[in-house]
Amino acid sequence: MEMSNGFLSSSDSMRAARPLSHARTVSFPEGLDLQLGGHLEEVTVCYETYGELASRADNAVLICHALSGDSHVARHGADDDPGWWETIVGPGRSIDTEQYFVICPNVLGGCRGTTGPNSSNPTTGKPYGRDFPNITICDMVSLQKKLVDHLGVEQLLAVTGGSMGGQMVLCWAAKYPQSSRAYIPIATAARLTSQSLAFDIVGRNAILHDPAFRDGQYYEQPQGPDIGLAIARMIGHITYLSRESMQLKFETDRHNPREVSTAFEKRFSVGSYLGHQGDRFVERFDANSYIALTLAMDLFDLGDSREALVKSIGRTEARWLILSYTSDWLFPPEESRQLAEALIRSGTRVSYCNVPSPYGHDSFLLEHNLEIYGELIRSFLATTNGTTAADQRSTGTAGVWSKRRKKNQPDPSSIFHPDRLDYTRIIDLIPPVSRVLDLGCGHGELLFRLKQRGFENLTGVELDEEAIVSCSRLGLDVLHLDLNQHLDSFLDGSYDCVVLSRTLQAVLDVEGLLAEILRIGRRGIVSFPNFAYGKLRQMLYEQGRAPESEGVLRYKWYNTPNRRFFSIADFEDLCRERNIRIHRRVALDTEAQEEVVEDPNYNADLAIFVISR
Amino acid sequence: MEMSNGFLSSSDSMRAARPLSHARTVSFPEGLDLQLGGHLEEVTVCYETYGELASRADNAVLICHALSGDSHVARHGADDDPGWWETIVGPGRSIDTEQYFVICPNVLGGCRGTTGPNSSNPTTGKPYGRDFPNITICDMVSLQKKLVDHLGVEQLLAVTGGSMGGQMVLCWAAKYPQSSRAYIPIATAARLTSQSLAFDIVGRNAILHDPAFRDGQYYEQPQGPDIGLAIARMIGHITYLSRESMQLKFETDRHNPREVSTAFEKRFSVGSYLGHQGDRFVERFDANSYIALTLAMDLFDLGDSREALVKSIGRTEARWLILSYTSDWLFPPEESRQLAEALIRSGTRVSYCNVPSPYGHDSFLLEHNLEIYGELIRSFLATTNGTTAADQRSTGTAGVWSKRRKKNQPDPSSIFHPDRLDYTRIIDLIPPVSRVLDLGCGHGELLFRLKQRGFENLTGVELDEEAIVSCSRLGLDVLHLDLNQHLDSFLDGSYDCVVLSRTLQAVLDVEGLLAEILRIGRRGIVSFPNFAYGKLRQMLYEQGRAPESEGVLRYKWYNTPNRRFFSIADFEDLCRERNIRIHRRVALDTEAQEEVVEDPNYNADLAIFVISR
Repeated sequence: MEMSNGFLSSSDSMRAARPLSHARTVSFPEGLDLQLGGHLEEVTVCYETYGELASRADNAVLICHALSGDSHVARHGADDDPGWWETIVGPGRSIDTEQYFVICPNVLGGCRGTTGPNSSNPTTGKPYGRDFPNITICDMVSLQKKLVDHLGVEQLLAVTGGSMGGQMVLCWAAKYPQSSRAYIPIATAARLTSQSLAFDIVGRNAILHDPAFRDGQYYEQPQGPDIGLAIARMIGHITYLSRESMQLKFETDRHNPREVSTAFEKRFSVGSYLGHQGDRFVERFDANSYIALTLAMDLFDLGDSREALVKSIGRTEARWLILSYTSDWLFPPEESRQLAEALIRSGTRVSYCNVPSPYGHDSFLLEHNLEIYGELIRSFLATTNGTTAADQRSTGTAGVWSKRRKKNQPDPSSIFHPDRLDYTRIIDLIPPVSRVLDLGCGHGELLFRLKQRGFENLTGVELDEEAIVSCSRLGLDVLHLDLNQHLDSFLDGSYDCVVLSRTLQAVLDVEGLLAEILRIGRRGIVSFPNFAYGKLRQMLYEQGRAPESEGVLRYKWYNTPNRRFFSIADFEDLCRERNIRIHRRVALDTEAQEEVVEDPNYNADLAIFVISR
Repeated sequence: MEMSNGFLSSSDSMRAARPLSHARTVSFPEGLDLQLGGHLEEVTVCYETYGELASRADNAVLICHALSGDSHVARHGADDDPGWWETIVGPGRSIDTEQYFVICPNVLGGCRGTTGPNSSNPTTGKPYGRDFPNITICDMVSLQKKLVDHLGVEQLLAVTGGSMGGQMVLCWAAKYPQSSRAYIPIATAARLTSQSLAFDIVGRNAILHDPAFRDGQYYEQPQGPDIGLAIARMIGHITYLSRESMQLKFETDRHNPREVSTAFEKRFSVGSYLGHQGDRFVERFDANSYIALTLAMDLFDLGDSREALVKSIGRTEARWLILSYTSDWLFPPEESRQLAEALIRSGTRVSYCNVPSPYGHDSFLLEHNLEIYGELIRSFLATTNGTTAADQRSTGTAGVWSKRRKKNQPDPSSIFHPDRLDYTRIIDLIPPVSRVLDLGCGHGELLFRLKQRGFENLTGVELDEEAIVSCSRLGLDVLHLDLNQHLDSFLDGSYDCVVLSRTLQAVLDVEGLLAEILRIGRRGIVSFPNFAYGKLRQMLYEQGRAPESEGVLRYKWYNTPNRRFFSIADFEDLCRERNIRIHRRVALDTEAQEEVVEDPNYNADLAIFVISR
């Protein structure tokens, strides 16, 4: 198919943008009704696809691009230009084009082939310019839905995308909750922060007040609003990086501008970079599109309350994977966490990881920590698609992973530690068909055992990213949350059992955490080392030294991760004082691998309590 | 005196800027040699003064304004317009105009009366415009020095200022190290971060490429570069606030723009605010000044290494107070900490506080936590000036302070706790004339006792801001640093004694901290509670419960701030293993208030060790 009329390469402000060689277009003569009112006649979508649609049409992954992206998400062959998400999409990569049928359309309002302000207005025969109506993220999604239908895909395997693309993912879930088996919004939010909004506004002001903008009808002029667009792009560029990454990039040659040809200020290294970025952007992007797309991003708003979010995105029956990046300040991690929290409250299966990265918003396009976030995407897609854990390990970034693994950590590909008696006993204490929340779930040992026994409603909470990847490989849903801060998203009584194993002795706020466990769970199952274990008592009493022993108390006083030292009796005292009911107490001697009946506060080194309000 | 020719109120871009009614001007016919080459003929300074110069001319405080400030730092009387630092400067305020002679000049390159781009160029008789030479922060300071000399002040009591004003403070110290008895740089840095630099550059690009800029000669045109200047101001405004403060300001009425008259985008609340700010700024500020001043800020660079900083600002014999604000991302707190660290290394007396605030860079102009940072400025000035603590308490924000004080905290105006035997013994262990570093110095009890005994070289490190204020009132130098992270700025062997009293049991990295103590101090003096104290042993052994007692171990297992439990014997074991020499051991029974000789590991509840490598 040939390029549609949507791509006016003759426009001065688009002088260098090349047609996308593998792109196809499809036109919808019925047009598109718009969310804010109005109707676009005869809309065209420019898109690219990768891989093959399975006979059951159940392996399609829709990728939504960000503000300045397009349909070219990855190369189609060795001699093709690289795509904008080459790190993630391709044969053998996280979104494996040998397994999945990948669809990536240019968005409505864009300037690379899909209907947008630089398309010909059927009414006038000239480019829309400022006559292009105000569009929303949901309009973009409506058009994508037409494309997906056109391609014969009734239900997607997954919808994914970062930044503005992530907003589209959220909109897909809100508008078409049955449309996909999985949603993967990345580096995005239910609405922009006021700060991010402010940067967009200043960028638009720079374009709109550039005298060459001529109210959007600059296409036939010798000069477009290049200055305004370049200024907007420069502002944007600062927000895509982080303070730390800019420091890394520009500090050493701070006063030595790079040799670039630009009319913008070149006195400093960072200035030459920004000038260059501004100039290059003007060559490939249309100012009216920039206004249309940033305004759509800014108008996107799923509400400012958790309740509003639950209503909008909480109606899917799909699995979710939400990713954010620690240094992203355009779409700060806490905004992603709030998405996850809303899904938790709506009872949706969700995994969330805040990926460590110094590279700011751009992180989702970079190789850094691909062994975490790329691997999460890969394993999440695979387990959603029903591929087994064994299949997964043969592909993708598994090699990178195993090199990166810390010493002395259990091999995540072999999840089973030397048999842990306490796990066995905890599992025995959980009634069948329970909903289980495991706080500090580690590599998923306990949850996976439960899964193998047929438990279906299982959630983990964990702080270590690599442990989260291990869990994801096992098809478990795990949330990257801090036990001391982020449990309030779980509804009262939303789990039958909340497990906290061997963690209470390392937390700061013991009472607060116990209260949360008892609020969220109908039962809490708490295990901890018994500091009044006979050997330990003797050591302090007879030798006058801080007790240590095998197992959980194997540390020295100066390097132990434990910060609370207490006994079975202490815990029972606290339960009594706080009106916590104790339903069961299991006392273990883990050295002897046996249960203790007589004087457990002296003879047991580990205790498990089943408690409730 | 009348306003000089430096203030061209006829300029279109300056249409609303009123003359400053209490400002005076002085002209220096000899002109000014500039740092980057060139010479300005006949320079004029517009300035305001407050209070009276003492007969010994030793009470002058120079205040340096920020980018968009001017000489009007505070009102001169009840019916005067408020100044830009009204929160800090005035009768009875932190910079008390009843005690001090306050000088505030408009800076070189500014547009409110001091020679700048809108001043008449003596050569042409027209405004300089772009013919105004590139100036630096140090040029601004050179001109301020002329003014200070002109006013008959040989040595200032203090130089202070925030942001660009803080850069001037640093430059004063670097260029005229004998010029002041105190330096108070606020919310500033030795150089801008690349991110902050980038925002300035984009702002300048917007002005320089505004067609109405006409290469800077717009003064006689009907239209100046108002769009470019407004865009630059909008960008600046975002950087002066924080994400959190913008959220507070604009989230609730996000989609409801305020009713302002502006040609800029008004769709969102934050947009109407920015448009309004941009418009108002254009009325009172000159675009050429904006370019000149931001460029001076961007060029300011005391070097990227601690060594360079030590060389530039480490040569004063003055006291320093450095202030930063936690949410400031334009001049991030760590940049201020680096200034403090360089001064530490140069052996300069310095206090540093990172003031908690959600309001970003603007915090130094706001009332929030004035009882911390305003009080620090007040007490620092007073103790530098030789006022006694008793004098200070009668003035300023003391009332606010005492209301704000947490319950159960010792009254900072009465620094002495119930007599602490361990302090008395620690003081006995410190040889006379020692240089002493107190890690975790609290409200300064130990250091103040040493000061009263004639010790002169005393430094505290503390994390609690209110405790830092208490120390400041006592004239002590205290640094707001984290013991676990920030001790590397102290040079090897730079103190005779490093004290860590009753803190080792609460730190994360025991070995790391001990190593730092032994590196920095010729001797370390470490006190800690003895967990093998007989009563405690018995409690665990006989009752099987986590030990608690009076004093340092008075907490419950679930709420203790202590995270390390160890005994005198444990500590001695560690010293042996790590080749740490023990010079003295003092064992105390603090309940009985007596020293323990027999079996201290059983009979003492607190131990003091003198150690070294």
